Amino acid sequence: MPEPRPPDAARAEQWFERWEDRLERAARANRERDAWTPFVESPSRRLHPPGAAEAGKAAFRARLGRPFSLDLPGVVGTVGAEASPWTGAPLGVTYPRVAVDPLLEAVQAAAPAWARATRRARLGVCMEVLARWSDQTFENAYATMHTAGQAFMLAFTGSGASSLDRGLEATAAAWSAMQQIPERATFERAFGKGAPVRLEKRYRLRPVGVAVVLTCGSYPAWNAWPAILVNLATGNPVVVKPHPDTILPVAIAVETAREVLREAGFSPDLLTLACDTWDAPVAVDLFEHPAVQIIDFTGGQAFGRTIERRWAHKQVYTETAGCNAVVLESADDLESALGAIALGLVLFSAQMCTAPQNLWLPRAGVRDGDRLVPPAEVEARLVAAIDRLVADPGAAAGLCGALHSARTLADIATLKAAASDRVVRDSAPAPPPDHPEARTATPLVVRLDADDRALAQQERFGPMAFVIVADDRDAALAGATADAQRFGAIASYAYTTDPDWLPVVLDAFAEAGASVGVNLVGQRPMNYTAAFSDFHVTGLNPAGTASLTDPGFVARRFRVVQSKVEVAGS
Amino acid sequence: MPEPRPPDAARAEQWFERWEDRLERAARANRERDAWTPFVESPSRRLHPPGAAEAGKAAFRARLGRPFSLDLPGVVGTVGAEASPWTGAPLGVTYPRVAVDPLLEAVQAAAPAWARATRRARLGVCMEVLARWSDQTFENAYATMHTAGQAFMLAFTGSGASSLDRGLEATAAAWSAMQQIPERATFERAFGKGAPVRLEKRYRLRPVGVAVVLTCGSYPAWNAWPAILVNLATGNPVVVKPHPDTILPVAIAVETAREVLREAGFSPDLLTLACDTWDAPVAVDLFEHPAVQIIDFTGGQAFGRTIERRWAHKQVYTETAGCNAVVLESADDLESALGAIALGLVLFSAQMCTAPQNLWLPRAGVRDGDRLVPPAEVEARLVAAIDRLVADPGAAAGLCGALHSARTLADIATLKAAASDRVVRDSAPAPPPDHPEARTATPLVVRLDADDRALAQQERFGPMAFVIVADDRDAALAGATADAQRFGAIASYAYTTDPDWLPVVLDAFAEAGASVGVNLVGQRPMNYTAAFSDFHVTGLNPAGTASLTDPGFVARRFRVVQSKVEVAGS
Repeated sequence: MPEPRPPDAARAEQWFERWEDRLERAARANRERDAWTPFVESPSRRLHPPGAAEAGKAAFRARLGRPFSLDLPGVVGTVGAEASPWTGAPLGVTYPRVAVDPLLEAVQAAAPAWARATRRARLGVCMEVLARWSDQTFENAYATMHTAGQAFMLAFTGSGASSLDRGLEATAAAWSAMQQIPERATFERAFGKGAPVRLEKRYRLRPVGVAVVLTCGSYPAWNAWPAILVNLATGNPVVVKPHPDTILPVAIAVETAREVLREAGFSPDLLTLACDTWDAPVAVDLFEHPAVQIIDFTGGQAFGRTIERRWAHKQVYTETAGCNAVVLESADDLESALGAIALGLVLFSAQMCTAPQNLWLPRAGVRDGDRLVPPAEVEARLVAAIDRLVADPGAAAGLCGALHSARTLADIATLKAAASDRVVRDSAPAPPPDHPEARTATPLVVRLDADDRALAQQERFGPMAFVIVADDRDAALAGATADAQRFGAIASYAYTTDPDWLPVVLDAFAEAGASVGVNLVGQRPMNYTAAFSDFHVTGLNPAGTASLTDPGFVARRFRVVQSKVEVAGS
Repeated sequence: MPEPRPPDAARAEQWFERWEDRLERAARANRERDAWTPFVESPSRRLHPPGAAEAGKAAFRARLGRPFSLDLPGVVGTVGAEASPWTGAPLGVTYPRVAVDPLLEAVQAAAPAWARATRRARLGVCMEVLARWSDQTFENAYATMHTAGQAFMLAFTGSGASSLDRGLEATAAAWSAMQQIPERATFERAFGKGAPVRLEKRYRLRPVGVAVVLTCGSYPAWNAWPAILVNLATGNPVVVKPHPDTILPVAIAVETAREVLREAGFSPDLLTLACDTWDAPVAVDLFEHPAVQIIDFTGGQAFGRTIERRWAHKQVYTETAGCNAVVLESADDLESALGAIALGLVLFSAQMCTAPQNLWLPRAGVRDGDRLVPPAEVEARLVAAIDRLVADPGAAAGLCGALHSARTLADIATLKAAASDRVVRDSAPAPPPDHPEARTATPLVVRLDADDRALAQQERFGPMAFVIVADDRDAALAGATADAQRFGAIASYAYTTDPDWLPVVLDAFAEAGASVGVNLVGQRPMNYTAAFSDFHVTGLNPAGTASLTDPGFVARRFRVVQSKVEVAGS
């Protein structure tokens, strides 16, 4: 039976008008894939209103040591045991714990009005949410820093412009996909000698069900903002299930978006938060609920694969992990290449899904201009480059950040024991003077032979890397691409100055279903990824099924229901 | 390792240029969804080259009583036991029987060159295939007639323009989705005070794997042409598994498309045919093969649901069945409405997925202008309208066609026995004079009460219909939409002259995830569906997951693999 009409969406339509140019510009950027962003990437004071930085820091501090107030449905208690990787101190924030059935009952009650809202109203809400999240970047950066462990500068970009860009990219992709289908059409045609038939057709875009978005611990916003927004844009309510150790930045964003929904006259329960604990995880109960039809997951490969198989009859979009390779064949300036690779290994202690892990070298050496540099020397110079980056503890912390999880320290120790005499650079703590309790570790580097590289055939989350020596450049390329195909790769890299070999490299990674960056030594870290330009995850290797943000990421989240009414007398 | 370069695709690129305007026009029709088709819908002689009809008939006759030659890989014997529903006589055509493993080995060997071909080359091949299929319409119409059981006129449209339209629509949708992603982009941006970074990016669209397309017995081309073409367009090789009783029209199309592939320098094994028998079905072996990553299925709901669950980790697109309703509330001219419904029940003996089945009436009667016509009279006039359509055996056969399957006769007998005294119109054979052996049946109509309608809550494939009396119009609408949501509906219908109730009807079907046609009495049968304008299957009820042809039908069949190469000195 038809339900009551949607709330007056005038406010949301106004937001659409306010942000329409930005939305259309983003849709164009999606198609042209050049450099564009409307968000501010730097925390530099001159780029923000006076007092923004201080206000953000104060807002973050005001969150600490108290319950985080969210008027969620189905609350049955509280959870929350986050501790700062920088200080070791608990944040003291508690969140509502919700029971799955009453939560989803409320979500389903909120859903019909959102399903019936116009595309413009839904997009207006999404665009306004992005703008408000942008205004909260300082606060969210501190929240990210003290949960994920990111250094402040990275957190400001990572939970700010970088993730806002991806969110806008996804929103615009959803808009473009929906705009492929007109809202109405008139079908008029003569059949034989009779009067023309005229049919007034209407195409309604309908959501498929509730979406559950699992966010990850170390980089909470980057995959989450796109998933949240693309689901809302296409009419699907969202339940966010944050990583139990990184709730705060996500909770802040959910709170803000719920306020936007409320202002527009919709139920805030279109976006809810289901926090859990390591001991009592709630994800499976959410996935099993019949109202849930979409799962967006960011996290480990094992659970990701389980989700891909067990809930395959729902829509599943995953971004997990891979053993990202660097094939180092030759360089115009080997020192620059090694500097870039060292930075890639150090940056946020390689806790980013695009961080390099396996450095492949030809046994005869890497050509540096006219010289062939043997693997031992390449390795030594890489170690030296890493050492320089982490020499000063303050500067090191700014690059390395803190380790999100204590488990990573254990993983480093385990790998070190397994690698025994093949360790070429040991890992060590490097806490900064202002955070002596910070959980830190500089990169562990292990040397392997291509024929004995099992240790490198999985993602080692955190500052662990391998130098793998192969017989020649083709063997290195073959090994790197085979591992990408078999074990997954989110980002791959290569360095070569040989114009004849470059296409061989590009083809080999393409055949392996792995994206590749070549000769990256410029102003940005090698694993810098640009929304509107770079696609992320191919879906063609075990590192995940979701691509941010291609048509396949958005197009099945809505369906078309049509009506046609014959016009009398036609 | 990179494989040899693709074949010289100059021929395919020429085809692309030849058909580019048609392709772009189709893409525009997809967005505007008004009336358009480039194909010829009528077999009228003046619309075709002289002799085309005779040549087509002769070509069909030449196929009979002999092996159908297809140089497929992995041939291990022959199959083929088709018999004409019109004559009862075996066609005498045998087809190669293939073994799954060697077949797929050959398909996989052919795949890389197709994956590497340009979009234009692949689209050129698809567009040329459509043109050649169009040229074969007469031959294919006879093949369809004598396997599916369609009358010639329906077969000419059904395996001709209607299916070619849907194939072109899908091809254009794939093109549009791919064109969202540029082939290359230059990313240039200054970070901080350094020189701008310049990255040359390339976005390769890569297929996901082999597609298996299962075609159905009664309407072989309509879902199959879109599935075959959209898979080929996006780079995925196709294995077609035809219904064992309707192989010939599909085999003809496969033969032609293989020839086009060959002419373009590609392996014909990019499109293969895996025929089987009722006793030794091959579909499951195909689905289980690891190379198969896409399943396009048209057929029964039970097997469709099994596929949707069991192979959900692959991409599954289904079109199955539903219990299509007609809610008859009021009409400007009840006789016209009843005539349209009677035609819908008679046309091809309701063996089309869009045929109406359950006619819902308010107990107080149907308003006809100023008069309230009681259900018993509505029923009697419907029966009379059916009787008029089938009174002349020759004309009846032209409308009803033959029954595709002998099982349908048994199903009619079973339903008749179950309905006992509720039969309001009995079914009877009505063979035409020129085909006295034709397997035919006129509609069986059964009266049910809304509270006791279990018999109507499934698809009754063939000429079986129900008149269901509900307490009032809202109860009728509620029952029709509830059954659509629970048991599936591919097409729903309503008749109402009440402008206040019309939006209630449209909203109710939209909420149920069922498309609806209202007041359809025009020149075309009510279940006429227009490619480029009508979407087919919503994916929101049990009648299937595939929609022809929305972005969700095409967008996940390819993935993006990217490379970025930093330009030296940037």
